This record gives sequence, C-alpha cells and structure tokens, in this order.
Amino acid sequence: MKDTGIIILAAGSSSRLGTAKQLLEYQGKTLLMHVVEQALASQPARVVVVVGAHAEEITATLAGKDVAVCYNTDWSTGMASSINRGITQLLIENPGVKSCIFSVCDQPYISEENFTQLFVRQSEIGKGIVASTYADTVGVPVLFSKSYFEMLLTLHGDQGAKKIVEQHNDDLATIPFDLGGVDIDRPKDLNHLWHQMVSVSVAREIIKNNCTNGSKGIRNIRNAGGYTVAESIVSNLDIPHFRQSAMDGYAIKFEDRLKTLNVVGEMRAGQPFVEKLISGNAIRIFTGAPLPEDADTVVMQEKVKRDGDWITITDDHLAMGSNVRQKGSEAQKGTLALAAGTLMTPAAIGFLAGIGCQEVLIFEPPKIAIILTGDELQELGKPLSFGQVYESNSLQLHAALKKAGVVAVNVYHSQDDPDKLKAVLAEALQESDMVLLVGGVSVGEYDFVVQTALREGVQPHFHKVKQKPGKPLFFGTKEGKMVFGLPGNPSSALTCLYLYVLPAIDQIMQRPDSLTTISAITTADYSKNVGLTYFIKAHLKDGKVSPLHAQESYRLQSYAQANCLLVLEEASAGAKVGDVVQVILLS
Amino acid sequence: MKDTGIIILAAGSSSRLGTAKQLLEYQGKTLLMHVVEQALASQPARVVVVVGAHAEEITATLAGKDVAVCYNTDWSTGMASSINRGITQLLIENPGVKSCIFSVCDQPYISEENFTQLFVRQSEIGKGIVASTYADTVGVPVLFSKSYFEMLLTLHGDQGAKKIVEQHNDDLATIPFDLGGVDIDRPKDLNHLWHQMVSVSVAREIIKNNCTNGSKGIRNIRNAGGYTVAESIVSNLDIPHFRQSAMDGYAIKFEDRLKTLNVVGEMRAGQPFVEKLISGNAIRIFTGAPLPEDADTVVMQEKVKRDGDWITITDDHLAMGSNVRQKGSEAQKGTLALAAGTLMTPAAIGFLAGIGCQEVLIFEPPKIAIILTGDELQELGKPLSFGQVYESNSLQLHAALKKAGVVAVNVYHSQDDPDKLKAVLAEALQESDMVLLVGGVSVGEYDFVVQTALREGVQPHFHKVKQKPGKPLFFGTKEGKMVFGLPGNPSSALTCLYLYVLPAIDQIMQRPDSLTTISAITTADYSKNVGLTYFIKAHLKDGKVSPLHAQESYRLQSYAQANCLLVLEEASAGAKVGDVVQVILLS
Repeated sequence: MKDTGIIILAAGSSSRLGTAKQLLEYQGKTLLMHVVEQALASQPARVVVVVGAHAEEITATLAGKDVAVCYNTDWSTGMASSINRGITQLLIENPGVKSCIFSVCDQPYISEENFTQLFVRQSEIGKGIVASTYADTVGVPVLFSKSYFEMLLTLHGDQGAKKIVEQHNDDLATIPFDLGGVDIDRPKDLNHLWHQMVSVSVAREIIKNNCTNGSKGIRNIRNAGGYTVAESIVSNLDIPHFRQSAMDGYAIKFEDRLKTLNVVGEMRAGQPFVEKLISGNAIRIFTGAPLPEDADTVVMQEKVKRDGDWITITDDHLAMGSNVRQKGSEAQKGTLALAAGTLMTPAAIGFLAGIGCQEVLIFEPPKIAIILTGDELQELGKPLSFGQVYESNSLQLHAALKKAGVVAVNVYHSQDDPDKLKAVLAEALQESDMVLLVGGVSVGEYDFVVQTALREGVQPHFHKVKQKPGKPLFFGTKEGKMVFGLPGNPSSALTCLYLYVLPAIDQIMQRPDSLTTISAITTADYSKNVGLTYFIKAHLKDGKVSPLHAQESYRLQSYAQANCLLVLEEASAGAKVGDVVQVILLS
Repeated sequence: MKDTGIIILAAGSSSRLGTAKQLLEYQGKTLLMHVVEQALASQPARVVVVVGAHAEEITATLAGKDVAVCYNTDWSTGMASSINRGITQLLIENPGVKSCIFSVCDQPYISEENFTQLFVRQSEIGKGIVASTYADTVGVPVLFSKSYFEMLLTLHGDQGAKKIVEQHNDDLATIPFDLGGVDIDRPKDLNHLWHQMVSVSVAREIIKNNCTNGSKGIRNIRNAGGYTVAESIVSNLDIPHFRQSAMDGYAIKFEDRLKTLNVVGEMRAGQPFVEKLISGNAIRIFTGAPLPEDADTVVMQEKVKRDGDWITITDDHLAMGSNVRQKGSEAQKGTLALAAGTLMTPAAIGFLAGIGCQEVLIFEPPKIAIILTGDELQELGKPLSFGQVYESNSLQLHAALKKAGVVAVNVYHSQDDPDKLKAVLAEALQESDMVLLVGGVSVGEYDFVVQTALREGVQPHFHKVKQKPGKPLFFGTKEGKMVFGLPGNPSSALTCLYLYVLPAIDQIMQRPDSLTTISAITTADYSKNVGLTYFIKAHLKDGKVSPLHAQESYRLQSYAQANCLLVLEEASAGAKVGDVVQVILLS
C-alpha cells in the first residue's frame, strides 16, 4: 500500500478553450495521458484522476492504467470540490497516507522528475509544503503533507490550494520548474511549444512517439535479411520430417540392449530405402539417416564392441530414444515456428528454409526523400566556380541509409526559393514516407526551410535541440509522415541522421535499435558548455576512446577517421583523462 | 640487461632431411622463425640463435629481430660446439647471467608458454635443471642454472645436454609438453601435423597467417561503402575552395574593429558575385558565403549593435581571422586527404565527395564458392520425400556473406560421390577465391570431403578444433586460396562461418574485425566439458546474457532467436549465474 498520492485534477470544462483540454493531443498523446504516465513513472505513489466534465470520454482513455478514476459530481462548483474528492479517495484507500501532490493536465512539459523531486525534497527538509516555482510564482505540482489535508478539505467553490500555500510561507520549500509556466489556456498555445529548445532525450522521445509501423510486404526469404517478420509463422511440416539418427552408430530396439546383436544392414542420409528392424538385429546408421521402422534407439559407434557382423553394447547410460531426433522436434506441423517481431538474421533465414518456408511478410523500410537546398552546391564531377562547394550530403546520407537497409532513396535539389522548395516538398511528401530536408534550418535570414515546411502543412514538433553539433534540427510530421530538417553542415547532418533518423527507421521497421552505446575510458581532457549534449567524433580502440581533431561542423575529415561518437551529457562540464564516458559505435 | 637466456640451436645441416630444416615452412612461417618469435614473446630473456650450416641464408631471415645470431665455425663437429658457442655468447654479453634454456627449431608446436613455464618452475622450486617431458622421455626446451654452465662447456663432439640431465635426476624438475614429441625429422612429418586437434586460438592464428590481401578494384565512391581504401588519396583541390564565413554576421577588416562601420552590401552562399571591402565598411554575410576581397574577419551577428546601416562591434574576444574558414583548411591541394587503409564509412564517402573525389581504389571482397554435399538435401519449394531434409545452409551462409559485403557467391551441389565432388571442387577453385565445402567433414565412413580436398591438392592445416559446436572444421589452402570444410549441421556451419570465415574475409578486405566481443553477466548456470571452447547461442539484453534452449547442432530455431554467442573458454568447467562472461555479438 503506497503511503503517498498524486492527485491529477482533470474535472474542468476547459470553457476558455472550447474543447476538452484534457484530451488535446500534443506530440501524439493527450495532455492527460502524458501527466498520468509521468505520475506512474515517478517514485511509487497512488495516482488518482478526478474527472467531471467530459467524464465518460476521459475515463475511457484511461482504461488499463493503474490509476483510481474518481467522478466529482460537483465539478461545476469549482476546483475545491475536486481537491476534496481526490483527498477523500486517497484516505479511503489508505487511511495512513502521509502526503499528496496535486497536479493538472495542461503542463505539457511535466515529467516524472518533477514529482520525484517534490517527494525527495520533502523528505530531505521536512517542510509541510513543497511547491513548484515558475514565472515568479508558486504553483503545481505541489506537495502537501497530511497535516494540511483538513485545511484542504475546507476549501470551497473556486478556491484553489494556492491560497493555503501563500498562507504558510514559513512551512514552504520550492523546486524550480521553468517550463511549468507553459500551460495551455488557448489551443494556439500548443502551436508555440515547438519553439522551445528541447533536450536530446526529449527530442528522441518526441520522435519515438511519432513513429508509425512500416507497411508490410512479402519477401522471398533469400531477400529478407535484416528485416523484421510482421506476422507469426506456423510450420506446415513436422521437422525433422522423419525420425533421424543424431550420431554415427547402430540403430536398435532398446529392449535388445543387453543382447549380442547381428548387424544386418546399413542406412545413411539420402539413402532411399527403409530397413525394418527385427528383434535381435542392429542396423549400421549414420548421422542424419532415417531410423529403420521399429528401431527406437541409436548407440554411438564408440560405445559398441564389434566382432565381424556382431556387436555388444558398452553404453551404461543408454536410454530409450537416445541419439534419435524425433519427428517434429525442431518444428511441429501447425504450431508457431517463428514469432512476429523476429529479426531475419542469417540463422532465421536458415531456420525458415529448413522448415520449407519460402516467403515471409516483413515490415518494409520507409521510402525516403532527401531534399538538398543551397544555391552554392555544385554536383560532383563538375568544376567548382568561385563560392561553390561540392554537394556531399546526399552521398553520405544515402550511404548511411543504404547500410540501414533503406532501398528507395530519392534525391531532390531545390533552389533557395521558397515557392520552388514548397513544390519540391509537396512532391516528396507525396512520393515518400519520410523527408529529409538538408540545409537552411538555422535562423539566418536566408534559412527558410522551416517556414516552407509549415506553409506546406507540416506540424512542427521541435526545431532546436540542446546539442552540439546539430542544434538547429527540425522535426515535424504531416499525415503520419516524418519530416526532418537536418543542418546543412555535412558533419552535423550525418550526426543528426545517426542520432535521430536511423533510430526512427529502426522503429518503423520494428527492428532492435541499431545504435549501440557502450562505456569507454577517455584519453583526453575535454571541456564543454553545460546545457548542451556534445557528440564528439572519436576513435575507440581497446576500450579507450580518443576525441579526434577538427570537430568543426563543416569538417568531415576527422569524421572519416572516427569509429564512434563520444557523448558528454547536457549537465556535464566535460571529461578528464581516465573518466568513464559513453560512446555510440559507428561503423 | 637480461639475466636469463634462450639459446636456439640452429646450426645443423639437416642431413636426414636433405634440405635446411630451419627454413622449412609450416603454416606460413619457417620453423626457425616460429621458435624465435615464441622465445621473444616469453618472459624477458636474451635470445641467441646459433647457426652453422646454411648460415648466410638463415641469418638473412632473422634481420630485424632482437636476437644475437652467432656463427659456430665448428658446427660440423656436432652439437657440443653449438652449446658452447651459445653459452659463451651469453656470458660475453652479461657475465651475471643466471640461467639459460636450450631450444631447437623443429618443434612446430612450441609456444612462449613452454619457455615461461620453465623459468617460473625453476624460480618456484629452485632445482638446477627444468626439462620438458614428452613421449616418456625428457628433452628440449630445457633450462640449466648457471652452476651447470661449466659442465655444459666441457661437452664435445656429438654429445648433447641430455647426458647432463640424466646424470642429475636429483636436481631435476619437469614440465609436460605433449606436443614436444612432434618433431620434424622427415619432410613428410610436416604433413601429419594437421591431424592434431587444435585450440580455437591456434585455429584462428593459422587462418590469419594464411590470409592474403584481396585484389584491388576501382569503385565510384557511391558504391564504395564498407570497403577499405587501398591507396592513399591526395586532394586535387584546396577545400574550402575559397575563404568562407563560418557564421551569420558581418565581414570586416580586423583593423576596423573599433570603428562604427557602414553596412554596404551582402553576401550569401551561392551568390555569384564578389564584394570588395573598403576600409570603414562592413558586408552582411551568411554561413558558407565567400569572404569579400580584403575582408579578413567575421563578427557574429549576436556581437554587434546595428543601427540602420551602421554597426558597432561588441565582441571583446574578436581576433584576426575569427569565424573565417581559410582556403584549404579542410583539405590542401596536393597533400594527403585520406590514408590507405581507411574504411569507407558514410563520413568518408561524404568527405571524398566534398573534395571532389569520385573514384577510389578498394580491396575487393573475395569471390566465394559454396559446395553443398549430402544426397539427403532437397531444394526449397519441392516436396520432401522420406529421408530428405530441406537444404538451408546455402541460404543462411549466403545471407551472412551478403551482409559482410561479399558480392559474388556461387553455390554448387555435389552428389556424395568422391569423383564428382573432386570435379566440382576443381571448378570452384578455378572460379573463386575461397571455397566453403559444407557437410561431410566428420569421421563417418561416408564423410569423404576432406579426402577429396587432399586429392585435389589442397594443403591441409587442421581438421579438428577443440570447440563445440563445430569440432570437425577443416581448413586448407591451395595456391593462396582458402578452403574451409564446414560441418553439415546448419547451426555448426553458421557458427564456424561467424568465427572463422568472416574474420578471414575481413582480413582479406583489410577491414577492422567485424566480430565484436564484449563482457556480460550470465543469467544461468552452464556446465561444460573442460578441453573444448563452447559457443552457446544466447540472447543479450541490458548487459545480461541468457543461453537459449535447444543448443543441439542440428537446430536453428534457437539460433533464430539469438543475438549473440556466449563463449566459455577451453579450460573452463562452466559458468554460474552472475559470472562475467564474454559474448560475441551477432546481428
């Protein structure tokens, strides 16, 4: 029984909003679902959701979640009745409950940490109230210890808990929650959230939440390597298809094991006829050969004494059925042979071939469009005029996509003209499942890619990530299709592809994440700005990782020497020689 | 100065052999070079090689090795003079030398451990002599402490040190060296060595020593992903091809930095004309754009105050050349851009595109022939008759080879008939660089693949490896082409491909080893036979590795679920839950 609670107040009618705020979707989830999931993920606490307006609809969305959903019949009288209903529920379930947190459902940036921090701070300093602070005010989520429950139960009408917080400044601790001030009072507020610069983990989470499964297609197993099986495969045959010897030896009846046996025949793999075994006889047999009718056991050739055509058995451990592969022991007709979701490795291909399966349904790789912007780009093979650079992004991105099993990559070039780019983007979205816009995502006056994407109806999710390189990374969606805006600098573009695009492709294809992160010892001091995650081109050898020279984002020479990215987290100020750091393996 | 020595007696004329025994090659090295390298790799000791017959030829092969080569003018009088010469050399170099080991050059299985064990045993038990034992006798390598040097110096003619060993049984310790008895007194002795069952590490070493570099071929960089560059690439251009702004900002003359400057123009990437900068003016500039003539520095847009067309600079840290990418700073015309041996990763492809390079010389993957034996094999898609199994090895091996970048794979089927197989093997050796014979390598009466390979002139290196699965693994070479005989059981065949064939391909293609071995915690007890290395199909998740059910070598179902092989070393008796074990990653 949990002795703390989190009460999510979700009873309001969202009258200012004109629609059920609780069910507004942001980044693929309802605002209510987001806060519920974060509450459930925090330090163990009983989660109570108080509903009122739109109760039925809201309750339905919470099916299967481990929360108490309480209907507040008086919801229209104001906040106080919902506070009352929530506390009462906690006390009914556990009269010993020691504290509770109040939360709401219009803080899109709330995370489990906000809840955990309140609990931790309270236990550390013993104040009766711990509130969040943002925009020069105190607010939710806010924790009250049990001594305040009676006072909370006396609130009425529109009174909120804030009144009690303000009256007990001396018993108050606070936790900063800068993004807590971003709430949703108007639908268009949601439209501004994407301007927030997000952390790497948030960016990944947002992308993950927007992944949809790839379409399914049939492949001959010979061409299915690296794909994931989209439906379970049932065996059409018993495999082995007959009782088979697992050894070179003699096939016998187990009951004859103590007799001297007459070797009367021989069976080998691929031999077309069948011996029938008569009691008192043995048949010489080789690995993979079918067992004679009426034989039930094979003795290894090392475990007999043979004298002419007669053998005696010296195997004390022989058991009925020893060294026999039973019919159907690898795969049984009509039963599950390979589960949906299995990756088609060479072994899986061999297994399916062995059971006679020729085709599989797999998750297809997405069709990908690369749209290059930048009037300065010159095509490889032509001479460079003044001010031109060779276009290299399409080649390196295509190479990385090909390696990831993507088959269809269309490359478009667009002049730096908004209308032309818009037309190209429209075509690319039509033809492909995912679009990579390259270049033009930073804030310069001539960087118009993001604006063009918005004009084309792409819903933006973020366009700035707290990282180096690749800070100006755009991510949006249109009708389930993903649009990435990668930086134009080749080094940044490739790093963003590795960190964000390839994992999305893995998820679409339902494959295990192909990014492997391991620990290593760093060989050099490296200092960085706190507040950005750094991805440093590096070389890993024998568990030691060395940052390479020339990290500038326009430079690929050091990247060409790199076999990993050294990761220094957002909060870190750098690493010292000998520190254990995380590295992402490239290959 | 080392106070122990290893004297290698290599002065004999090999009269029984009819050729210089010292220079006989076994597994790609001369017998003498093998013992020299093992001696140098053992516990630090001065290595002395005493030569006589064929002295000039033998001495030449030792160039560059850290050994003293001593010519024994009296070599024809017998062994004693060489013993004398070796000890004298040690005493001249270091009068304080405390002990020495005598070794010979016709023990192909000697290893550094044999030397180290003698030194260690001597220091542990303090006996004056430590000899090796094999085949019921004592022999070399043998260690004598200094107290025996005088006695050794009095030997004469054909007398060997064995006489002294036999006379001092009370001061003798011994170390078993079973394979020490395999010496080379007749050239054909070398032909029997391959019957020895070898350890996994020895098998790998033998294969490695027999790898030759792949042929070289030209590829468009678009199709060069995953290959290794075979010759260094020099840049034909300065890249960037012009001085380039690294920021959005203002191009200025550094000497003007304290003035209020008039913004008189704008340059952006892809803009075809060039502004000339006059003192007192600034040019608005964007990332990637060429610097105006006479400008030398760029100020970031965040570091100026702009008032109409006038700016003042607020950047205290501005230096001459700030935010300018100099011409040639990524690659300088005529200098090394990418070294031979670099792997063509996506970044390397991008880098080469950026410097205008379209084609590279790479090491080609080998052409590979798969020869299937086994009359019981039925082709996928046809019905199974009694006693038949679907042929799955070619599919899974092909899938794994394709994944490793092998393009040309020819699959042959041969009936279980020695002459037909011999003809197929001859054709395969003609058409391909490497041959994989599948099935028929174990010792059953109908397993004739190894015999056929020998008849076809393949030089055998080993055919039994101390491992499970895959004990009957054959490896031979013919005219620089490798021939592997893989077990017919699908699971064993695939494991042997991963462990031996793919690393050989990596080496032929000069790529980094694609087998990644990491540490993990095992979740289950597993007991095994000492004396075999086990490779267990397993599943790795979050640093924990679980052996899968159904390890039998004919079964692929568990292999289809595996993402790694758990390795239990030859000397191990198994692993317990919680032990740290090594795993080889598959994918």
